Amino acid sequence: MSINRRKFIQSSALVGAGIAISPSSKASPSKHEKANISKSKINIGIIGSGFRGQSHIDLLLDRNDCEVIAIADIDDRMIASSLAIFKKYGKNEPTVYKDGPHDYKNLLADENIDAVIIATPWKWHSEQAVAAMKAGKYVGTEVCGAFSVDECWQLVNTQEATGTHLFFLENVCYRRDVMAVMNMVSQGMFGELVHLEGGYQHDLREVKFNDGMKAYGGGVEFGEKGFHESKWRTQHSIMRNGDLYPTHGLGPVAQMLNINRGNRLMYLTSMSSQAVGLHNYIVNHPNGGEKHENAKVKFKLGDVVTTMIKCANGESITLFHDTNLPRPYSIGFRVQGTKGIWMDVNKSLLIDGLTEAHQWTSADSWLKKYDHPYWKANEQKAIGAGHGGMDWFLIDEFVNHAKVNKRPPIDVYDAAAWMSITPLSEESIAAGSKAVAIPDFTRGRWMDEN
Amino acid sequence: MSINRRKFIQSSALVGAGIAISPSSKASPSKHEKANISKSKINIGIIGSGFRGQSHIDLLLDRNDCEVIAIADIDDRMIASSLAIFKKYGKNEPTVYKDGPHDYKNLLADENIDAVIIATPWKWHSEQAVAAMKAGKYVGTEVCGAFSVDECWQLVNTQEATGTHLFFLENVCYRRDVMAVMNMVSQGMFGELVHLEGGYQHDLREVKFNDGMKAYGGGVEFGEKGFHESKWRTQHSIMRNGDLYPTHGLGPVAQMLNINRGNRLMYLTSMSSQAVGLHNYIVNHPNGGEKHENAKVKFKLGDVVTTMIKCANGESITLFHDTNLPRPYSIGFRVQGTKGIWMDVNKSLLIDGLTEAHQWTSADSWLKKYDHPYWKANEQKAIGAGHGGMDWFLIDEFVNHAKVNKRPPIDVYDAAAWMSITPLSEESIAAGSKAVAIPDFTRGRWMDEN
Repeated sequence: MSINRRKFIQSSALVGAGIAISPSSKASPSKHEKANISKSKINIGIIGSGFRGQSHIDLLLDRNDCEVIAIADIDDRMIASSLAIFKKYGKNEPTVYKDGPHDYKNLLADENIDAVIIATPWKWHSEQAVAAMKAGKYVGTEVCGAFSVDECWQLVNTQEATGTHLFFLENVCYRRDVMAVMNMVSQGMFGELVHLEGGYQHDLREVKFNDGMKAYGGGVEFGEKGFHESKWRTQHSIMRNGDLYPTHGLGPVAQMLNINRGNRLMYLTSMSSQAVGLHNYIVNHPNGGEKHENAKVKFKLGDVVTTMIKCANGESITLFHDTNLPRPYSIGFRVQGTKGIWMDVNKSLLIDGLTEAHQWTSADSWLKKYDHPYWKANEQKAIGAGHGGMDWFLIDEFVNHAKVNKRPPIDVYDAAAWMSITPLSEESIAAGSKAVAIPDFTRGRWMDEN
Repeated sequence: MSINRRKFIQSSALVGAGIAISPSSKASPSKHEKANISKSKINIGIIGSGFRGQSHIDLLLDRNDCEVIAIADIDDRMIASSLAIFKKYGKNEPTVYKDGPHDYKNLLADENIDAVIIATPWKWHSEQAVAAMKAGKYVGTEVCGAFSVDECWQLVNTQEATGTHLFFLENVCYRRDVMAVMNMVSQGMFGELVHLEGGYQHDLREVKFNDGMKAYGGGVEFGEKGFHESKWRTQHSIMRNGDLYPTHGLGPVAQMLNINRGNRLMYLTSMSSQAVGLHNYIVNHPNGGEKHENAKVKFKLGDVVTTMIKCANGESITLFHDTNLPRPYSIGFRVQGTKGIWMDVNKSLLIDGLTEAHQWTSADSWLKKYDHPYWKANEQKAIGAGHGGMDWFLIDEFVNHAKVNKRPPIDVYDAAAWMSITPLSEESIAAGSKAVAIPDFTRGRWMDEN
């Protein structure tokens, strides 16, 4: 068992303190760490209170160890539904910053705010995270892929210069089966890891298009005529071809592989299929058709984008991005090592010598047996929280780390490495699937963290 | 529905004549086609009568429309067990060519032989296929990957120069579920195809190592001290890193995509994981251990090799090669288009508008409903044949095509394109997953075959 795995198990023992999956609990690689200020209760500001921000608000207001004292958004409808959550919990209304897209800066100027969560459209994440770190807030930022590698460096450089922390809010790292498998990986059940897979395979056609009133489906509108994510997300399918949303699949896999902690992502190559799914959806929809103005739109995003990543310790990763076709939701995890394999899609595994050779065995009883103690201890609290309960753990971890100003388990180096897959996959596809180096955002410190 | 799909359906109607999956039944692209000589009964020679050759002999001797009149092999034990099959069927003993590895040439010199099947170790396939085509035999060759692109061109050039046919004996193209899905593809059930996957994921550790007496397992011997495939196959894992066995996964997928018939394979990129599985097996085996001489052997073959292929019509293909780790057998098919998706590993599918949206539905009833007529008509005969019955169909197709000297449904261009994946994936991996062009072995004729 590697040193990494042993440390992972030790840190898993910290669960009682709510610090569950920090793969490395020793000194942060940041040289400029802020003095530790520990608080029993913190004030939080929300930048972006759309549906995702509202889900976070709901979880935060249900806690005793934080208050949400400010929100920033530009959409009156979303602000109104956010305020309704405060009313539901009988909490004081927050200060609302709604004076245009840059009013969030005034939220950041409020010295009573200890931490912020950013849940805006993708293009705002890094700009707002950089501003928030500079303002000294403990930052949680929703997931996305980057637009450029430079953007990833900006996050790293700002974190190192300011010493404030960035928690990359990848919720799938807290999925119950994923944490159970992480537990099994830590205990060496799969042996030395060899090949892992994951991805974002989600039929988003009713997210990318709607009728401008409902959030999901009912029409083929987007952009100014759309509502919710179709207002901005669909445009990415028109303008870009790459793995636009890599972190749900990559995050858990990277944690299992100790990426940035004794291992790192070295290079990738990406391939995309043709782009036909979204156009087909528009022309075949009862509210669309060949004559609808959106039937003329050309989409660049290949319906299926596949990315292969090589790691410093030899392992390979395959990532999927598949959002334009009719299909069941699937992150498509595969965790494979010298002693066994787990696959998500058939909910099965094989462990050498422990399950029948050459056969799939249902993973159910194994996932129960290795259920992560953090999950087991908080199961009741998590019921009803978003995405099968995992969002409760995400927010719990965020608040617990922010209260003690601790390096997050998913830090700025993870954010940079994971987000960089998007522009690098665009580069690879544009050049006929050429291999592209992935920068070492830790500047060599991944070698000392083993 | 494309012209290809319509033609596929038409050719499926030829099933009664045993010509089942010819994706294109019109004129062969070969300019030098041999005069059609049709026979009601043919004489067949077997080159390589190991376990695979014996499986073919068994199926051939069970038929009335062919005789096996000669076999060539160098291994007395394999010759003896081959002759026992003739005895079992009460058939005349064949002429045996066993005077060294080149005695097969004397078999080819026998003018009474109409067709040959080659089932030797990989390195002999192309040399023997070329010699057999030059000798005017209708050639069936077992599957493998090529050693070089030049070898693939040799096959094509020889076929075109001699006008004799080469049937590439890819049995997975005749798997019942695969043919049912091919049937669904032909009828447009998946819409326009977008992304397909397949591969060879088979724990071969007990094939690559045995005790020198049994064919499978019981020790960590190979090469001169091994038996059966471990005598020669294991050496490939020591010397080569690439997708060594691409055609079980690629063959069916290429047929669904009309490769070489209106579409073609354009370029690929491959990635391999580290190579640790086989060494681990040796040192952990009760008859192996750290001190066994084979513990010193260094293996080059990455435990998991992944290859992405881009097609001329835009589709992407992902291939897996995974033979050194404990895992269940899985070809891992995925067939995905604008109207639906089928996956092999969870035996499930989704068809837009016909099954529940966003959910997997068991594929069972769909595969029964679209069961290929060729399978349905011959189910009883196929019972007991190798690999779940598919080998019966493979041999039936081979004999039926050989009798009428017809262009095979899996021809020399398919053989060349599919086999070329091996050397090209080796080249890609050796150069850090660079993209590598796949030659057009049809010399442009794929464009006329649509």
